[in-house]
Amino acid sequence: MKISELKLHSIAIADPPLRSSYGLHAPWALRTIVELETDDGIRGVSETYGGEEPRAALEAIRNRLMGMDPFLLTGLLRDMSRDADALTEGNTSVPGGRSQTWLVPGENPLDQTTRTFAAVEIACLDIIGKAAGRPVCDILGGRVRDRVPFSAYLFYKHAGGGGNSDYPDEYGEVLTPDAVVRECRQMVRQYGFREIKVKGGVLEPAIEIESIRTLRSEFGPEMPLRIDPNCAWSSDTSVHVAESLREELSGGGYLEDPCPGLDGMAEVRRRLLDCDIQTPLASNVAVTCLADVPRARQLDAVQIVLSDPHYWGGLRQVQLLSHLCSVLGMGLSMHSNSHLGVSLMAMAHVAAASPNLTFACDTHYPWQTERDEIVAGGRIQFENGCVPIPDRPGLGVELDYDQLARGRERYEKIAFRKRDDEAEMRKHVDPGWKRILPRW
Amino acid sequence: MKISELKLHSIAIADPPLRSSYGLHAPWALRTIVELETDDGIRGVSETYGGEEPRAALEAIRNRLMGMDPFLLTGLLRDMSRDADALTEGNTSVPGGRSQTWLVPGENPLDQTTRTFAAVEIACLDIIGKAAGRPVCDILGGRVRDRVPFSAYLFYKHAGGGGNSDYPDEYGEVLTPDAVVRECRQMVRQYGFREIKVKGGVLEPAIEIESIRTLRSEFGPEMPLRIDPNCAWSSDTSVHVAESLREELSGGGYLEDPCPGLDGMAEVRRRLLDCDIQTPLASNVAVTCLADVPRARQLDAVQIVLSDPHYWGGLRQVQLLSHLCSVLGMGLSMHSNSHLGVSLMAMAHVAAASPNLTFACDTHYPWQTERDEIVAGGRIQFENGCVPIPDRPGLGVELDYDQLARGRERYEKIAFRKRDDEAEMRKHVDPGWKRILPRW
Repeated sequence: MKISELKLHSIAIADPPLRSSYGLHAPWALRTIVELETDDGIRGVSETYGGEEPRAALEAIRNRLMGMDPFLLTGLLRDMSRDADALTEGNTSVPGGRSQTWLVPGENPLDQTTRTFAAVEIACLDIIGKAAGRPVCDILGGRVRDRVPFSAYLFYKHAGGGGNSDYPDEYGEVLTPDAVVRECRQMVRQYGFREIKVKGGVLEPAIEIESIRTLRSEFGPEMPLRIDPNCAWSSDTSVHVAESLREELSGGGYLEDPCPGLDGMAEVRRRLLDCDIQTPLASNVAVTCLADVPRARQLDAVQIVLSDPHYWGGLRQVQLLSHLCSVLGMGLSMHSNSHLGVSLMAMAHVAAASPNLTFACDTHYPWQTERDEIVAGGRIQFENGCVPIPDRPGLGVELDYDQLARGRERYEKIAFRKRDDEAEMRKHVDPGWKRILPRW
Repeated sequence: MKISELKLHSIAIADPPLRSSYGLHAPWALRTIVELETDDGIRGVSETYGGEEPRAALEAIRNRLMGMDPFLLTGLLRDMSRDADALTEGNTSVPGGRSQTWLVPGENPLDQTTRTFAAVEIACLDIIGKAAGRPVCDILGGRVRDRVPFSAYLFYKHAGGGGNSDYPDEYGEVLTPDAVVRECRQMVRQYGFREIKVKGGVLEPAIEIESIRTLRSEFGPEMPLRIDPNCAWSSDTSVHVAESLREELSGGGYLEDPCPGLDGMAEVRRRLLDCDIQTPLASNVAVTCLADVPRARQLDAVQIVLSDPHYWGGLRQVQLLSHLCSVLGMGLSMHSNSHLGVSLMAMAHVAAASPNLTFACDTHYPWQTERDEIVAGGRIQFENGCVPIPDRPGLGVELDYDQLARGRERYEKIAFRKRDDEAEMRKHVDPGWKRILPRW
């Protein structure tokens, strides 16, 4: 079995005006849909970051992929990593350089190799699953759960849906604690989520504390709560928020990336333990590659690592991360970016096959719409906050080529090619806005 | 696809009078051949430790295996580990208890679960490979090498082959440096090995040092050398041997388990570094489970871990170990016990799929004979010291049922049921012999 075709589809999908410490989401998010086909006619699909650079990186390995046996993934990753190491040899600015404090996931030059490999690996696993007649999770060693829990991912936002003005705005403006509760109620009603994540670092910490408290009193302790300000807080503010939310973030919740860097996180942790506050710290910013994990453990800077197959190097690398965390006594959760159904299923399959992934995974999926979904049959259906693993080979999804064509058309029509949340803030909210860390 | 049958074959194979710090190998070694069959008629095979206890442990999970989907391995390991944890809960004598200082591999009660699981996992991977029409190494993520290098495994020994007196003795008595060189020449001529391991801890250290020196001058620096006295030496002796063999163990060689325990190994390492001796320390005695690895790294007690699918929990656990070692900056090699062709192929497949496994693997295979091999077509052929990965689905071997029946007959005929190298020493060499650590 050999790979005989690689097709790359750059698409744009509507994205609502969501806020974070990075700024404001643009009306469009970009994705790349990857199709591989083998000489015996099996097609595999994956979804990765959008725009020019991820596509160019995949184009750059086209010749290497043509004729490759899709089972031989370990060697491909080794070879791609070797090439990348050779390119960056002598570049001693790497230590700490992998931090995503200033970069959005998907834009860190230091994980370009693992991002590009991941897009290939997931499509190859889809092929392998189809060749073996088994769901991808079973190719990965076997599912330990048939239904993968995801979390409600709440954002402060401005009014208006994504894309053109004709996209619906289900949630309206959300800039107060009461509006967050309304947003959550709406999302939980529709999807059945049993855990809640709030994207913070947007409003005054006092308002964000109040939001979490209001959510807790509305949904009770059986709905674990997490808040992620994307490094917007100083160590003092981080400790203050954790102290204020000692009760609300307990029972399966966590505080994610309150401040930048492993040293900052370690300081917050020490100060919290001094006050006997056990709230674990999670990170997808200070820990972005496997080599970061032992150091994060040693400093006790991070107790829960957020995996993400898209930039950690695919599904098997997430399994290895899961295992590494387990050996080191750390927890594992899963990070997300704006995405469609192919990514959702890839995330679900690896989560199903990772015993240590005990937190509900993040997903932006509720923020995208039926209108942009490129999966045949329409949007993936959640059951009680979970994605059921379908009883179909591979990832269990096929592409809707008409929808894919529409996504490509949207991409061609818009000028937007690279996420810049700061520029969006300046355009729509505050002409002088800059990302300042710590803001509070 | 469901498992519909489990067959266990207890067999005995001839084993020559090999010496180690444990004592003397008995004339027979015991193995268990495991066969699983699915409801659609696919058969998978594995080979594990022999005698009553490993067989009983597999019998104990027979009901759990019947009807199980052979792809769902991760959940089986999780469940078996949970059950084992529940059984040992409250047993606080575990720390350090996993050390194999006094136990031969395969007899540590604390890895009974991973041993039993491994025997099932490997047979299931054989089934999965056959179902997908692919070699096991490709099911594991894909081979990174087509030929797996093994090492010449030299033993001091008494004259005489294994088993009854009618088994041949190719190597004769080996109790001097010159005899070791003769043994090595013979083995290298027959198999083409490119690395050499010497089982030490048997004769006076001065003689063992002389053996290594003689090997080096005979085979030159392009044949890396390792010596493994199975903890027979004090820290002082360990340091003395490493100092004496500074040159001979350099260039890809190592010193394996010179003395017992992580603390002892760490002390030896510190003293060696103080003398600027970089010879790495390897272990399969002080590090026997994943939880040991970070501590071994932290203490710098072990620089190279010896994996072994038979007791580390199967092929995927060895891959995880490989990865863990890579993240922690440690090397990986592979341990062996007396075994036949099914084990050899399982070891070869996981080594083929593990980029970090850069040392030639140990194997006792040259010490067994065609007469006892249970693999159809006879003994696995080495090419230049390597086992080529066959272009066949699964492990690539089928059972010779006549040979298997002969192995069972031998098992039934002999009274020997459990390895006891100390008793063999007393019977054949020295009626007062006891294992003393450190002996020197």
